[in-house]
Amino acid sequence: MPQAGIPSEQEVLGWFDSLSNWGRWGDDDELGTPNLITSEKTRQALATVQEGLCVSLSRDVTWDPAPDVPAPPVHYMIESGEGWATGDKVSNRPSAVAMDYIGMIFHGVSVTHVDSLAHFFWNGKTYNGKPAHMVSTSLGATVCSVEQAKNGFITRGVLVDVPLVRGIDWVERGEGVMPDDILAAEERCGFRIEPGDVLLVRTGQLRRRAVEGPVPREAGSTACQAACLPLFRERDIAVLGSDTGNDVSPPQYPGQLTNPVHQVSITAMGLWILDNANLEEVAEACQERNRWTFMVSINPLRLQNTTGSPVNPVAVF
Amino acid sequence: MPQAGIPSEQEVLGWFDSLSNWGRWGDDDELGTPNLITSEKTRQALATVQEGLCVSLSRDVTWDPAPDVPAPPVHYMIESGEGWATGDKVSNRPSAVAMDYIGMIFHGVSVTHVDSLAHFFWNGKTYNGKPAHMVSTSLGATVCSVEQAKNGFITRGVLVDVPLVRGIDWVERGEGVMPDDILAAEERCGFRIEPGDVLLVRTGQLRRRAVEGPVPREAGSTACQAACLPLFRERDIAVLGSDTGNDVSPPQYPGQLTNPVHQVSITAMGLWILDNANLEEVAEACQERNRWTFMVSINPLRLQNTTGSPVNPVAVF
Amino acid sequence: MPQAGIPSEQEVLGWFDSLSNWGRWGDDDELGTPNLITSEKTRQALATVQEGLCVSLSRDVTWDPAPDVPAPPVHYMIESGEGWATGDKVSNRPSAVAMDYIGMIFHGVSVTHVDSLAHFFWNGKTYNGKPAHMVSTSLGATVCSVEQAKNGFITRGVLVDVPLVRGIDWVERGEGVMPDDILAAEERCGFRIEPGDVLLVRTGQLRRRAVEGPVPREAGSTACQAACLPLFRERDIAVLGSDTGNDVSPPQYPGQLTNPVHQVSITAMGLWILDNANLEEVAEACQERNRWTFMVSINPLRLQNTTGSPVNPVAVF
Amino acid sequence: MPQAGIPSEQEVLGWFDSLSNWGRWGDDDELGTPNLITSEKTRQALATVQEGLCVSLSRDVTWDPAPDVPAPPVHYMIESGEGWATGDKVSNRPSAVAMDYIGMIFHGVSVTHVDSLAHFFWNGKTYNGKPAHMVSTSLGATVCSVEQAKNGFITRGVLVDVPLVRGIDWVERGEGVMPDDILAAEERCGFRIEPGDVLLVRTGQLRRRAVEGPVPREAGSTACQAACLPLFRERDIAVLGSDTGNDVSPPQYPGQLTNPVHQVSITAMGLWILDNANLEEVAEACQERNRWTFMVSINPLRLQNTTGSPVNPVAVF
Repeated sequence: MPQAGIPSEQEVLGWFDSLSNWGRWGDDDELGTPNLITSEKTRQALATVQEGLCVSLSRDVTWDPAPDVPAPPVHYMIESGEGWATGDKVSNRPSAVAMDYIGMIFHGVSVTHVDSLAHFFWNGKTYNGKPAHMVSTSLGATVCSVEQAKNGFITRGVLVDVPLVRGIDWVERGEGVMPDDILAAEERCGFRIEPGDVLLVRTGQLRRRAVEGPVPREAGSTACQAACLPLFRERDIAVLGSDTGNDVSPPQYPGQLTNPVHQVSITAMGLWILDNANLEEVAEACQERNRWTFMVSINPLRLQNTTGSPVNPVAVF
Repeated sequence: MPQAGIPSEQEVLGWFDSLSNWGRWGDDDELGTPNLITSEKTRQALATVQEGLCVSLSRDVTWDPAPDVPAPPVHYMIESGEGWATGDKVSNRPSAVAMDYIGMIFHGVSVTHVDSLAHFFWNGKTYNGKPAHMVSTSLGATVCSVEQAKNGFITRGVLVDVPLVRGIDWVERGEGVMPDDILAAEERCGFRIEPGDVLLVRTGQLRRRAVEGPVPREAGSTACQAACLPLFRERDIAVLGSDTGNDVSPPQYPGQLTNPVHQVSITAMGLWILDNANLEEVAEACQERNRWTFMVSINPLRLQNTTGSPVNPVAVF
Repeated sequence: MPQAGIPSEQEVLGWFDSLSNWGRWGDDDELGTPNLITSEKTRQALATVQEGLCVSLSRDVTWDPAPDVPAPPVHYMIESGEGWATGDKVSNRPSAVAMDYIGMIFHGVSVTHVDSLAHFFWNGKTYNGKPAHMVSTSLGATVCSVEQAKNGFITRGVLVDVPLVRGIDWVERGEGVMPDDILAAEERCGFRIEPGDVLLVRTGQLRRRAVEGPVPREAGSTACQAACLPLFRERDIAVLGSDTGNDVSPPQYPGQLTNPVHQVSITAMGLWILDNANLEEVAEACQERNRWTFMVSINPLRLQNTTGSPVNPVAVF
Repeated sequence: MPQAGIPSEQEVLGWFDSLSNWGRWGDDDELGTPNLITSEKTRQALATVQEGLCVSLSRDVTWDPAPDVPAPPVHYMIESGEGWATGDKVSNRPSAVAMDYIGMIFHGVSVTHVDSLAHFFWNGKTYNGKPAHMVSTSLGATVCSVEQAKNGFITRGVLVDVPLVRGIDWVERGEGVMPDDILAAEERCGFRIEPGDVLLVRTGQLRRRAVEGPVPREAGSTACQAACLPLFRERDIAVLGSDTGNDVSPPQYPGQLTNPVHQVSITAMGLWILDNANLEEVAEACQERNRWTFMVSINPLRLQNTTGSPVNPVAVF
């Protein structure tokens, strides 16, 4: 049974046009909505800081498989601390060090990461009409790479804490967060989402994982429902983040419209997405202060020709 | 011929004791000098921002080998944009996406990264007496992991631009930056290095690479000479960064004292190190403004049991 | 409840001495029992071939996780066939190719592989007294590497088909194959295990996986019980293989004696082990011919300083 | 200056049709010329063995970069032997083991490997008309995978030792081996290449590398010139191998005809190729015995959906 009140497939398909930002920042632009994070916006965000308290919005990057992490990142020590103290050491290194190899597929539903505008395509194109095949197998994202974000996103963060507003523990898997939830949060928490903001939507799903344990990806996920897309466009947010993978699953639409939030945000709006954030500590910090806005610093790695980056976003109060 | 005026091996060895911070922040502390980045320090750093201009301090993470990058990071597309537009696509995925695998040994002399206090050992121990073997082959850094930095380092950055102060293009490979260079920069540029600062020392070596091309690692490197260690301790910096690997090479001392700046900083002082930063754009920004201090945001990934992290530090003016 | 008739911990511990081959092929030997595969043995093995029929003894190397494969090998295409036909291709390559990256931890319970004598240690040593720490984190197996097997093992294979002999579908998990099973197979199938043979013990566990599906590693495994070790030594087999990981689990002994077959075979006897073979097709071929001996060709990759290798052993009838 | 006597581009292009084996072994065949390795052929090959002497035809798989190995295989220990003897060990493992991760791009000019028929394309297709895009980024070689070779290639090997026949040390880089070299070897060495043979062409280039050291790939390579293709087809060899990457470089033809031997062999003839073999020891063994034919066992790993496999082919005299 589909969720009540959700937009039809036709409505969502229409948003690829009506919510489009193609051409808005020039025909060559590959950055999209982060253009809204102006120096003035950054300055304003910094001005909201009162205490200097820093809170991470990232999960730990862990190495073990779990029901919802079938292909975890990998961590190999290319040199360890073992043997140095006793002298039982066979090594070319003249002094005692330890070093790691790390590897990961950051996309998916476990690593906290941003998606660049090269991550999704619609009708063979992504943002600003860039052809899908320019994200090639051998050379990667020759357009819309995460390098576009090289100077970071230092702006205002706004937390929409849906469980707080609804008075629940968490939103159910398979059910979406609706625009009314976001508007109710504005009302309840006393803020208004503004251009250039990083909008962080807490569904409580990560808390549920901590309480109940991980479930297979097939069990589904909550996220903002596609119905929120016009609001994102209207308020001109720069980045959408949440404590989930940012699309309701199982998919609520047939065919290729599997991830409407990603698909419309990335390919039409040029809106960057922050997946799998950890909003637990920041939600507590907000409640304690009765304030749901703060400065946030998201500094993606400058990964050449890459469709996103693992990140550790930090909120500052 | 050793560099004139450099401290003797005995002096440096003495600093493992005399500059030690063991116990200073408790016997269980694994964080070290970033304890100096208090909320007040963060707040003060933010207060220095006037414009909101953001400047990356990272190099690009690239995938091709070079004379000084024999084992570069790797980038594989696990799904690309190819074939989606024409329908010539064999994939289990119902909609058009692109996704990457990235892998890297971030330590070394090319990736911009921070070292946690698990990266080096001296006499079988690292900071606060933690035994080397606790950085194990199978479990990684079970002490002093980069996770200690999970809330980021948001503090004041200070740029010592040695070529500017000395009136040269770059410091020679094999030659060290001396404490007098740093003091001269304070004098010339009108700042004083203070507790909790991120000290960034520009040698010009990265500019030289851009001009002359890469050279093999064996060609040597400049960096702060070990003589600077007492000054770092006296001024209580939280992080030492530079546009090089932060130790003069070839080594200026015999035996295991191959990387005295890393070895004393990490194991004795608990001082975090930022290697291979890109200080070119920030140096220009400083000169234009005639101001060599700024806010800096370094947000290491929350990599479980890992001896450091690739980062993209961002300076804000 | 322990399996009836199994040797005591003390008996097994005694075998580290009484079954030892240390020094047998010289104090510097790192090869062990494959020394028994003489040219004459190879020639005799070839002489048994009547038809020229080749049968693989390997499982497929697959890339997806499964309950018993939590960390599967990885396969990334660094160039694919997509886009070449239509010309929608962004690549540095002037002509149409496809290329792969493969990676794996071959040890474990899924990839068909051989263990070199660097894979296990007992009392800090492996075969012929080589110290464990010579298998180092940074340089790998500086002793007893799989390179010792560079010229391959081309010899006689002998199949002990336990389900056939016992008249069952498969041996139960947690239960071991006993020496009497092997002797009964000799009797029933009309062969005698001889020096230099590759002994292949089929338990039916791989067939069970095909019928019932994979189970987590914690569910246990069958294998030759430690009681078989004296027989292996007496008959002087060169390689022990089976369709399982070659040690009963859960472990039947306390403490470090977790894998007695591996531990005694590798460290004391210098006996190479073939884990996770696929003995289904070969068992059928044997039954059809009423002959359980054949030529076998096991050609480990010449992996420098490595503790084993994935292999595709081929039987020839 | 192009090599004298080489066929024109038009001639080579014509061979895509005139040398084609499409349909020869059925329209669904994905195996190609190894169909010629019949059981009878295998039996005959075994019958040639007189001594039982085994000789590897593989190079060592090494982990360090070299001028001609810019992206070497990788080897990480996920558990090492360090620390077990002294007890300074932090590990979840209850007993003392060592284990490796290995990873590699086996294609290229250093790892000894076979190419399956999914490795090259011509006009958007490979052998038997299979479309290029069926070798996809996410699923790999869904046609013509190396799994086709699961039962191994156990057949007769024939060594054409060009330096021996020509009386030189090695063939020059950039110059090709011509059909007359092969025919002269038949004459000089007393054999005739027959259907189902593995033809091994020694150019001496690997010996040159040992003597003079590695040179960058750009320095060029020798190999069989495209002119040999009709002979390969006429004699119906099953596998072509050499001590080089099996195509003359720099390319001798314009445009996409960069690797004519690979391109015609794989896509038209269905001929498998063995790249980067080590033919030094086998050449000595042949000379000592005055016999250039032997049994060979090439057992590719059963890598799912993969365009080839690293191998350690073993010759038996």
